[in-house]
Amino acid sequence: MKVSALQQNRYGYKPKLPRILSEKLETIAATGSGATKSVADQEELKALFSNTYGKPVVTFTKGKNPGVKKQLRVGVILSGGQAPGGHNVIAGLYDGIKKGNPDSKLFGFLGGPSGLIEASYAEIKDKRIDEYRNTGGFDIIGSGRTKIETDEQIAASINTAKKMKLDAIVIIGGDDSNTNAALLAEHFLNAGLKTQVIGVPKTIDGDLKNNMIETSFGFDTATKTYAELIGNIERDANSAKKYWHFIKLMGRSASHIALECALQTQPNICLISEEIEAKKMTLRQITDGICSVIAARAENNENFGVILIPEGLVEFVPEMKVLIAELNDLMAVKAEEFNALEDFAAQSRWLHANLSRASAETFATLPEEIAKQFLMDRDPHGNVQVSRIETEKLLISLVSSKLKEMAKAGKYKGKFSSYNHFFGYEGRCAFPSNFDADYCYSLGFTAFMLIASGFTGYLSSVRNLTAPAKEWIAGGVPLTMMMNMEQRHGSKKPVIKKALVELDGKPFKAFAKNRETWAVKTSYLYPGAIQYAGPDEVCNQPTQTLILEKGKSGTGAGRKPAAAKPAAAAASAAAGKKNVTKRVKRAGK
Amino acid sequence: MKVSALQQNRYGYKPKLPRILSEKLETIAATGSGATKSVADQEELKALFSNTYGKPVVTFTKGKNPGVKKQLRVGVILSGGQAPGGHNVIAGLYDGIKKGNPDSKLFGFLGGPSGLIEASYAEIKDKRIDEYRNTGGFDIIGSGRTKIETDEQIAASINTAKKMKLDAIVIIGGDDSNTNAALLAEHFLNAGLKTQVIGVPKTIDGDLKNNMIETSFGFDTATKTYAELIGNIERDANSAKKYWHFIKLMGRSASHIALECALQTQPNICLISEEIEAKKMTLRQITDGICSVIAARAENNENFGVILIPEGLVEFVPEMKVLIAELNDLMAVKAEEFNALEDFAAQSRWLHANLSRASAETFATLPEEIAKQFLMDRDPHGNVQVSRIETEKLLISLVSSKLKEMAKAGKYKGKFSSYNHFFGYEGRCAFPSNFDADYCYSLGFTAFMLIASGFTGYLSSVRNLTAPAKEWIAGGVPLTMMMNMEQRHGSKKPVIKKALVELDGKPFKAFAKNRETWAVKTSYLYPGAIQYAGPDEVCNQPTQTLILEKGKSGTGAGRKPAAAKPAAAAASAAAGKKNVTKRVKRAGK
Repeated sequence: MKVSALQQNRYGYKPKLPRILSEKLETIAATGSGATKSVADQEELKALFSNTYGKPVVTFTKGKNPGVKKQLRVGVILSGGQAPGGHNVIAGLYDGIKKGNPDSKLFGFLGGPSGLIEASYAEIKDKRIDEYRNTGGFDIIGSGRTKIETDEQIAASINTAKKMKLDAIVIIGGDDSNTNAALLAEHFLNAGLKTQVIGVPKTIDGDLKNNMIETSFGFDTATKTYAELIGNIERDANSAKKYWHFIKLMGRSASHIALECALQTQPNICLISEEIEAKKMTLRQITDGICSVIAARAENNENFGVILIPEGLVEFVPEMKVLIAELNDLMAVKAEEFNALEDFAAQSRWLHANLSRASAETFATLPEEIAKQFLMDRDPHGNVQVSRIETEKLLISLVSSKLKEMAKAGKYKGKFSSYNHFFGYEGRCAFPSNFDADYCYSLGFTAFMLIASGFTGYLSSVRNLTAPAKEWIAGGVPLTMMMNMEQRHGSKKPVIKKALVELDGKPFKAFAKNRETWAVKTSYLYPGAIQYAGPDEVCNQPTQTLILEKGKSGTGAGRKPAAAKPAAAAASAAAGKKNVTKRVKRAGK
Repeated sequence: MKVSALQQNRYGYKPKLPRILSEKLETIAATGSGATKSVADQEELKALFSNTYGKPVVTFTKGKNPGVKKQLRVGVILSGGQAPGGHNVIAGLYDGIKKGNPDSKLFGFLGGPSGLIEASYAEIKDKRIDEYRNTGGFDIIGSGRTKIETDEQIAASINTAKKMKLDAIVIIGGDDSNTNAALLAEHFLNAGLKTQVIGVPKTIDGDLKNNMIETSFGFDTATKTYAELIGNIERDANSAKKYWHFIKLMGRSASHIALECALQTQPNICLISEEIEAKKMTLRQITDGICSVIAARAENNENFGVILIPEGLVEFVPEMKVLIAELNDLMAVKAEEFNALEDFAAQSRWLHANLSRASAETFATLPEEIAKQFLMDRDPHGNVQVSRIETEKLLISLVSSKLKEMAKAGKYKGKFSSYNHFFGYEGRCAFPSNFDADYCYSLGFTAFMLIASGFTGYLSSVRNLTAPAKEWIAGGVPLTMMMNMEQRHGSKKPVIKKALVELDGKPFKAFAKNRETWAVKTSYLYPGAIQYAGPDEVCNQPTQTLILEKGKSGTGAGRKPAAAKPAAAAASAAAGKKNVTKRVKRAGK
């Protein structure tokens, strides 16, 4: 296998572990601490998860663990979108298993959860794992988005687990995949199966976190990769001084990625979907806010700038949210009628007749190119694929029109020329940063310890992440503890709560405190490419989000953030009606 | 000034110099070697450049240079698009000047060549230069695209140079800017001015190179940044196994960037404009070639892949070239009539009546969204802005239609889902790689040595670049030596010849030898982010283009390239009629 120089070099990196996990295995004991309850809907969840509900949070500490060396057969699944570090979770799991007992075996299910259903798997051995240590991607066994939900799927999974005589299955995934892991653990126990199920918190989106899970893996590397690109574009904007760059960032509903990138790069504007929803800001208000910043910068002869836009934005803008919901409902019942329409003009007429008046008007204001994106590429449920909508182009179009109006009214004298970008796939498979390499390896090793210690229905948990790795705390959290009941596709289901950006949280507040300055006074930071070697501040820093949430001081170069000065209003602040900072509603409610 | 951790760290990097330039200045002598001539049109150029034509190529070697410590006043200009390392050129120039005489002064012209015309400048001092060492961007003094061409502009420049008592001006720019530098040198001598003019070869596009200039600066960093992203996307494609990514890469006319990125990442397809022109491939043939690769991969159940597309592609496809030329001609004479048209439908009708029949048909086959891009955003001359055309989307649209036809005919059984990307602004202002940091600093220092040694009309030249920096050869090349006469905007002008990809050159041949394998057998390489610290093979490798052109063996990790095996045909090869490998015509002819 021919590999790049960096990949060859990264093979030699030794991921750091929490101190306790470097001890002799039989001296690492799991200590629990009382019953737990779910974040909401306790009675319903207790009934649904009669076997696994209420278990204690556990931490690994010095003690006795005599059974830890037993021979094991473990399966591992990569579920959902790629996140840097997935291979290291498997490497940590593998090394733990083999350290426990060299005759233990690790099997990788191929192509995601469907591998379990279809009993498609391959044993992972030394040679293979060594080719994937500290690398990005999920290509060691592939990933997939199949959900194990139906009775047939669960029965097939039980069948595979039985046939393979699996002691445990590790599911590496986001909130949905870990909800599935919780269900599987419960079903396995109901079926009298010995197979334990352990989850690992993965997602670049950063929306799988709570008191016990400080961050999901991959968020660190992905945001650093996007911040590299944003910084490069900022420097370009500040050199050429003639373009506004509208940059959309992956992240699904939550704006964690956009917020983290803003903290790393100090752009002129960063929209935060959760704030826009809380303030009920319309597209018009968002546009006005952006234009006021552009006009203020033009006054200083700075006809350039950078605007960050979270992928999920349109779902949080009131009138767009309604439009999307109406389109989804309409397509669910009249898809055939719609699909028979000849062209966009016919579709537009049909929508005008079938949408509410307000939504029909909203739809009519969209540029044709964008409007088409609301109608094409619907997902298997017939839903609009929000991630395919070029929000960045929509905003450019609206801003451009508004600036022309302002120019006519003598309120804007600048020149407006723009470029649009969308960053997502660029960061999901980067070589994991040292942080993610260490964190993932530790999560994998901890998953092994949870298995060897007899737990099921747990999420592998490594905490205290702003401290050096040896001070990290390894343990497990019952999956049910993070769950509540939510409406999904017409029925109430147990799910792990998605964490959106909290408007009273420290990361958002740090951003809000500085953004008015950043909007008008060019304050760009250029993080540059992720470094794997060098001094700690260059190659071993966690995200700003984590540092702010955990209370460690310093940003970027470890210096104090620049004090915010009063200045012309930043986009969101300028256009919002109220200064709402209370906690926003969670997604799916 | 708050800066990122990496920026702080890079301040401490000491760029490497050719050994000779570390000697005492008065022991570094310029040795010339006989008269030179331009690459073509010798008589015309000799007449146009009577003062500066025919000077010798010079090299700095051990000797005597007693005048090197004289006090100097030097101006520097950043011209055109950003390229990583521009700040280091200025740092090398600055350090040379100050080493020569601490009382010498360096002035930066603000906002590009217009700074010279308008006498807008600032002195560069220690504090300022130290804030920009080893950083990306051109923000230290800004850049611009003004050309110094008209009599008024030249007179104004002479005036500024006189008023500022400049001993020399250094112009950091691409082929056009250095053509201007040559003209300025000649005009200054004609005007009896002492001000020398030295150029520095800048452009990420890689098209400013020849026997004496091995590479332009910035190409190394930009291609490594794009290759990082392409590699990440390849790994994502290979993990998710469900998307085809169409990636357009900056680079203007030449395909050097696409080719270099292909050598670094081994994608399934990389289109090379120069080959497409040589083979006279139509859009239909290009599409067929891509589809045959997609179908071949689908046979192996690999419904994913990565395709690289050079920015300038459409200009090299015969029917598109004609269409663009006709549109440009039409707009030059009938812009007013066209601009009065109400909407796209009216524009289409008008074009149908005014274009040749062939071009009207070509235009009609374009997807509406793309067709509009041919009509909007024309440059100041009324020309179609080729870089604004989303060629990547055009190809997706054509490929998608063709695959549907093939599926109907039973010739394609796969699933096709795609994403498009355009990388350009992401790489122009990255922190320069160690190579570019060293190379640029050396170019700047060499520019000072040329000034101190009394040369004018020269391009700073640092050669032998695949050897360690201390073995690099520093010197100067007369700008006229690289020039020929070309038709530009209706009249014949002296210009520096643009270097396009040579189809009989080693980089293209290395690609051509392997591409049929890469097309069908997934052979991705993942270069990862640029590293600034670590072992040489990770952080001190020049581009594959340079290594192949200079004959040094090895690629990527320093291993041998995988041997090409016969396989299903690669895109270009599959669809091309003849196996043309002769040298293609140069641009502008």
